[in-house]
Amino acid sequence: MSIMQEPKIADVKIAEITGRTRVLGILAHPTEHVKAPPGINRIAMMRGKDAVMVPFNVAPGDLDTFVASLRVLKSFDGAIVTVPHKQAIIRLCDEVSPQALAVGAANVLRREADGRLVGHQLDGIGFVEGLRGQGIDVSGRSAYLVGAGGAANAVAFALAEAGIARLTLANRTVEKIEALAAKLKETYPSLDIAIGTADPAGHDLLINGTTLGMSASDPLPFDVSRLKADMIVAEVIMEPEMTPLLKAAREAGCRIHLGRHMLDHQLQLMANFLGL
Amino acid sequence: MSIMQEPKIADVKIAEITGRTRVLGILAHPTEHVKAPPGINRIAMMRGKDAVMVPFNVAPGDLDTFVASLRVLKSFDGAIVTVPHKQAIIRLCDEVSPQALAVGAANVLRREADGRLVGHQLDGIGFVEGLRGQGIDVSGRSAYLVGAGGAANAVAFALAEAGIARLTLANRTVEKIEALAAKLKETYPSLDIAIGTADPAGHDLLINGTTLGMSASDPLPFDVSRLKADMIVAEVIMEPEMTPLLKAAREAGCRIHLGRHMLDHQLQLMANFLGL
Repeated sequence: MSIMQEPKIADVKIAEITGRTRVLGILAHPTEHVKAPPGINRIAMMRGKDAVMVPFNVAPGDLDTFVASLRVLKSFDGAIVTVPHKQAIIRLCDEVSPQALAVGAANVLRREADGRLVGHQLDGIGFVEGLRGQGIDVSGRSAYLVGAGGAANAVAFALAEAGIARLTLANRTVEKIEALAAKLKETYPSLDIAIGTADPAGHDLLINGTTLGMSASDPLPFDVSRLKADMIVAEVIMEPEMTPLLKAAREAGCRIHLGRHMLDHQLQLMANFLGL
Repeated sequence: MSIMQEPKIADVKIAEITGRTRVLGILAHPTEHVKAPPGINRIAMMRGKDAVMVPFNVAPGDLDTFVASLRVLKSFDGAIVTVPHKQAIIRLCDEVSPQALAVGAANVLRREADGRLVGHQLDGIGFVEGLRGQGIDVSGRSAYLVGAGGAANAVAFALAEAGIARLTLANRTVEKIEALAAKLKETYPSLDIAIGTADPAGHDLLINGTTLGMSASDPLPFDVSRLKADMIVAEVIMEPEMTPLLKAAREAGCRIHLGRHMLDHQLQLMANFLGL
């Protein structure tokens, strides 16, 4: 009889690290809460790539020093960039994608073979790919988007890029969405764009791009009494999974789309961008 | 019937990497040939430590920039330092151990919680521990050591530290061993130290600390016609495992000690120093 002994390790294993293994990072402060490394390392293994993601915990005041060193680290291929570095990383990149420039933030950074660092923003594309993964193509639809922060900016640009027919922006502070509308109009001159109110009527895809719903005491992001059963209601909030908005939408008979789908697809997009 | 499917990975698995995992590096250029990461990662797993070693490939001209960034990388605990950075790392450390200072090279670097970088040298201690692991205690013995380079320096200091009774240094260029003898005398005033010739007679532990034997056409490091069966002949050369010196020693009836034992024990010593 043979007794198999297994060391106490996680269910998900990764390939052995050698001197040839390419290094990826997740640049954050702190890093204890970050979720991406196991997912990215699983993708690397499934794609047969000898690469591993490790945490890079760097304080905001040290970001310049640390990022400069990534240019000379020849075994490094890139990093996911998250809180609190998403905005600050922009001015430290040698090149920034139009999406990252538009949003004013990057969530992924690639090191080219010559050491140049390229920043890119995948929040919005992740959201659109998440919809597509659930069978919802945004092309030709009319969307109503609430919010003016980083998430809403990213989603707005990705919707425009994906060929949305009509986009209405809404926010408590109108100045911010006027600035967003102007930026969108500059990049997509033919986009049908409007500033809306709390009333989502007349659109078939309704998106919460604010943080309203993360806390149980938050007000709803828009007027749910105007929901109709043929509308799709989508969240960018991941926790809780069922926000009060999504509950109201389900009660109104709408199709709902969870915030986590944005993340599911982002890991794949990030892996692609990082060369996995 | 259940069919177990196993992804195609190396036999040695490491624990899953998360945002809490501590990062270790191996600082080299290039890194493709380095052997330490699998061994260190195995030790970390066996000791139940959530840490992982990845390759840091940094060119000599970029070393200052990169090492400065390690001070601010809060998820980093330390690195093995190898070719071509062992000497250059010394002036970039905030603190250097007496062993590293004596040898003029460090092969391991630890980041303290406050960001300070401490360099240490374990080549010599690894050699002595390797002997001890094979049941050979150097305390009280008389040793004959050939060579004046980094390996010989490291071994000489470790022998002195471990309580060798008498140490004879030999080298083709006498000036270099005179300098080494003076450094040893300064640190260990009571050490019985002498400058020898190619004749190893009168010692019970004979050590090749030169690179002679790595190439098949190399001359022998000392006069093997003087070998006697009660002598122990030890190598620092790891490749080939059986050098012409060791073959001659075996023919003379001597006990032989392989170069690889220095490395076996060094990984454990490095892991200890790096906090694993």
